[in-house]
Amino acid sequence: MKKEIQAITDMEVDFTQWYTDIVKKADLADYSTVKGCVILRPYGYAIWELIKAELDRRFKDTGHENVYMPMFIPESLLQKEKDHVEGFAPEVAWVTHGGATRLTEKLCVRPTSETLFCEHYASIIQSYRDLPKLYNQWCSVVRWEKTTRPFLRTTEFLWQEGHTAHATREEATEETIRMLNVYIDVCKNALSIPVISGQKTEKEKFAGAVDTYTIESLMKNGYALQSGTSHYFGDGFAKAFDITFTDENNKLQYVHQTSWGMSTRIIGALIMVHGDNSGLVLPPAVAPIQVVVVPIASHKEGVAEKAAELANRLKSVARVKIDDSDKKPGWKFSEYEMKGVPIRLEIGPRDIEENTVVLARRDNGEKITVPMDALEAKVTELLEDISKNLYESAQKNLAEKTYTARDLDEYAEIAASKNGFIKAMWCGDEACEISLKEKFATTSRCMPFCGEKIGDTCVCCKKPAQKLVYWGKAY
Amino acid sequence: MKKEIQAITDMEVDFTQWYTDIVKKADLADYSTVKGCVILRPYGYAIWELIKAELDRRFKDTGHENVYMPMFIPESLLQKEKDHVEGFAPEVAWVTHGGATRLTEKLCVRPTSETLFCEHYASIIQSYRDLPKLYNQWCSVVRWEKTTRPFLRTTEFLWQEGHTAHATREEATEETIRMLNVYIDVCKNALSIPVISGQKTEKEKFAGAVDTYTIESLMKNGYALQSGTSHYFGDGFAKAFDITFTDENNKLQYVHQTSWGMSTRIIGALIMVHGDNSGLVLPPAVAPIQVVVVPIASHKEGVAEKAAELANRLKSVARVKIDDSDKKPGWKFSEYEMKGVPIRLEIGPRDIEENTVVLARRDNGEKITVPMDALEAKVTELLEDISKNLYESAQKNLAEKTYTARDLDEYAEIAASKNGFIKAMWCGDEACEISLKEKFATTSRCMPFCGEKIGDTCVCCKKPAQKLVYWGKAY
Repeated sequence: MKKEIQAITDMEVDFTQWYTDIVKKADLADYSTVKGCVILRPYGYAIWELIKAELDRRFKDTGHENVYMPMFIPESLLQKEKDHVEGFAPEVAWVTHGGATRLTEKLCVRPTSETLFCEHYASIIQSYRDLPKLYNQWCSVVRWEKTTRPFLRTTEFLWQEGHTAHATREEATEETIRMLNVYIDVCKNALSIPVISGQKTEKEKFAGAVDTYTIESLMKNGYALQSGTSHYFGDGFAKAFDITFTDENNKLQYVHQTSWGMSTRIIGALIMVHGDNSGLVLPPAVAPIQVVVVPIASHKEGVAEKAAELANRLKSVARVKIDDSDKKPGWKFSEYEMKGVPIRLEIGPRDIEENTVVLARRDNGEKITVPMDALEAKVTELLEDISKNLYESAQKNLAEKTYTARDLDEYAEIAASKNGFIKAMWCGDEACEISLKEKFATTSRCMPFCGEKIGDTCVCCKKPAQKLVYWGKAY
Repeated sequence: MKKEIQAITDMEVDFTQWYTDIVKKADLADYSTVKGCVILRPYGYAIWELIKAELDRRFKDTGHENVYMPMFIPESLLQKEKDHVEGFAPEVAWVTHGGATRLTEKLCVRPTSETLFCEHYASIIQSYRDLPKLYNQWCSVVRWEKTTRPFLRTTEFLWQEGHTAHATREEATEETIRMLNVYIDVCKNALSIPVISGQKTEKEKFAGAVDTYTIESLMKNGYALQSGTSHYFGDGFAKAFDITFTDENNKLQYVHQTSWGMSTRIIGALIMVHGDNSGLVLPPAVAPIQVVVVPIASHKEGVAEKAAELANRLKSVARVKIDDSDKKPGWKFSEYEMKGVPIRLEIGPRDIEENTVVLARRDNGEKITVPMDALEAKVTELLEDISKNLYESAQKNLAEKTYTARDLDEYAEIAASKNGFIKAMWCGDEACEISLKEKFATTSRCMPFCGEKIGDTCVCCKKPAQKLVYWGKAY
C-alpha cells in the first residue's frame, strides 16, 4: 500500500528523527511552551491508561493500596536522608512564593516521594501489626533536565511509585524482587517487550538505596532503555526518619523499606522496540484501537451497514473503531498503520458477496480472508498471535544485538562498530566503569541475576572479575 | 451495638469536630507537614478512584478524550486572559528556581489549565473538521489557601478539568449544560446526593467565564457546598489566545469554549450529606467495601469456612471483604460502621444450623435474616435500596432545610435561626449580594434554571426583582 500522506523518516536514515516523527504523526505527544514538558495527546494518553491498568491490577493483586501524597516537599524534609538529597537536590524545581508572599521555607516539587512516605510511615506505624505497609501512588514528578525528548526524558513525567515498609530485611528484599517481577510480567505479557533484569552497580543505583534492581530493554537501534527499577532501602531511611515499630517481643525495631517505579518512559520503549518505517506498532494489550474497520467502496449498497454491523459484533472481543469518514481507503490504511493499530478489517462489495472479510496484520503485513462467521474467533486468535510475534521479534533483536567481549580489544571493536548489549566481566571497581564510559560511551546497565562466567578477569583492568555485567549505550 | 473504640464527637455537639473525626477515624485523609496539603489514605483514595471511574465512564460515553498537560504555566501565558489572571494570580504557587539556577521566567503551578489548553488548541485547530475538541484531564491543582480543611479546601487537590472547543456558540452552550447534567447524574445515581442546579451570579462566576453553571448540595448542618461547575467562555479565551478555524465557507472564525470540573471536594459532601454519629455512610456505588463479612464465634467448627465461602460467593455481585482477624465482633461492627460499609453480613453457628445469614444495613440500622440460597439476590436488592434510601433521606434534608424569604425581615429571621437554602428574589444588583453577605454571611449559591417567581421585589433593596436565587452559608 502506497503511503499517501504520513511519510516519516526511515529509521535507518535517522533513528532520532524517525522517533520524533512517530511521536508527532501518531499523535502521541506535542511540545508545549513550558520548557522540557510535553503534552500527552489523547492517543498517547490512552496508551498510558492501558499500561496503567495493567500495572494497577497487578499491584492490587499483590496486596498494594493506592494513596496520594502532596506534590510539595519542604526543603528540610528533603534533606533528612543524606544520599537522597545529594542525588536529587541539583535537579528539583523550587517553589519560593505563594501568591505574593515569600514562603518561610521553600518547597520542592517532588522528584520522587520517599521522604513524604517516610514521614507518613513514621506517624502511622507503631506495631508489627501495622506491617507491612504496601502503598503505591500514581502521579507526576519533576526533574529539572537540561536536554529533553518526549517520553524518554522530560522535566515532568507521569509514573507510579510504590513505597513499602516491612518488619524484616527478608520481607523487604522479597518485595523488591516481587515488584521487579511484576514489571517483567507486564513488559512480557502486555507490552511484548523482553528485558534483561538484574542489579545496578553502586555507581548506577538510586540515591539512598542499598540495592537497585532494574529491567533493561533494547531498542531497534541497539540502545538500552532502563524501563523500571525496584529499590531495597534497608533501614537507612527508617533511621533518618525514625520509623520504628514494636515487634512481637515488645522490642523497638526499625522498618525495612522498598520503592519501585515505572513511568511514561515505557512508551518510548514501545515505539523503539516495535515501531517500523510505517510508524508505531502496538501490542494488542495496550492498543487503544485493536481493530479498525475500513469500509471499501462504502457508497455501494450495503457496505456501510455491513461494516457497522461487523464493528458492533467485534466489540465483544476487542476495542474497535470504524472509520466511515470520506477519506480514501489508502489514506486510512496509512493513518492506522502510523498509529500501530494491530488489525485492519477491510470490507467491500465483493467481500459481502462472498461472506468474507479481509484482516490485515500490522505486525507482519499479512492479509488473510476470513469467513464472516468466524470473525470473533479469528480476531481473538490473531490478537494473541500478534502479541506473541511481537515478543519473539523483539527477543530476536535483543539476542542478535547482544555481544560478548572477553578483553578490551574485543570491547573496543564492538563498541566502535555496533550498538547493543555488551556482556563482559567486571572487577567491581568504579574506576573501570568510568573508564568504559569515557572511552566508549557505554554504561553498566545491569548485573543479571544468573550471570554466566565468561572469563576470569575484568574486561577493563584485567584484575580478577567479580561479576558479569551488561554494558551498553543507553537513553 | 455499643461503640467499643471509635467514638467520635456527635454532630449535634460540634459539627466541625464531627467532620474532622470522621476524616481521621475512617482513615480517609491525614495531615502532612506540607502546609495546607493532606495525604489521601488508602480508604479515602479508593473512594476517589470509584468516583473517578463513574465520571470517566460518562465523559467517554459523551465523546471526551483524556489528555495530560504540563503542571507549570509560564507567567506570560497565565497573563494572556485578563479576567482569568486577576482571579488566579493572587493564589498561585510560583516556581522560581530549577536546581540552583534562577529561571528567566517564573512558572506557576497550575491552579486550573485553561491557558495551557488554549495554547494547545491554537496550535492544533485549523479547520471546522478539527472541531469539536472534547478533552478532559485528571490531575492535581494548587491554590494557595489561607485556611484549609481536608477535602473542602486544601492547597493542592485532585480533580478533573474538561476543556472543549466548538464551532458555534450553540454547540458550546449545549456542551456546558450536557456536562452539568453529567455531574447531576453522578451525584444522583452514584453518590445519592440531590443537588440544586443553575447559574452563578456575575459576582460568583469563574474568572474569565461568560456564564458559570453550578450544582450545589446541602450538608446535614444546612451549609451549602458547591459540588461541580461548568463554564461557558464564549470566544473570550479564543480571542486572547488566537484560536481560530476556517469554517465551511472558508471564513476564519473564533472557537467557542467551555470548561468544567469536579474535585475531591465531593468526598466532603459524601461525608456531610450521608454521615451520622457512628461515622461515614457510603452510597454503594462508591463504597470500596460494599459488604463486610464478620464471622461470629469463629473458633466454632465450620464458621470460618462458611464465612469464607459466602464472601467468595458474593464477589460476583459486590465488593466484599471478610474480616477474620482476632478482634472482637463488636469492635469490627464499630470499625465498619465508621467506614460506612453499606452491608454487614454476620454468620455464626446458629446461622449455619438454620442455613441463614444476618444482613445489617448501615443506612438505617435494619437487620434482616436471609436464607443462604437467596444471598446474592438479597444483597443486590439491598444495595439498590440503600442507594435509593440515602438519596431520599438527603432529598428530605434538603427540602426541610430550604426556606423562603419574601422580605428582609423574613430573610434576617431565617438567617439568624437556621442554616439552609434561602430562596429569595433578587434585583440583579451586586450591591444587594454584598449586603446579604455582610449582614448574614450568606452568599448567592445559584439561580435555578426554572426559578419560580415568589415575589416581585428584591428581598434586599425592594427594587423590581429579576431572578429567584438560592442563598446560603457555604463551605
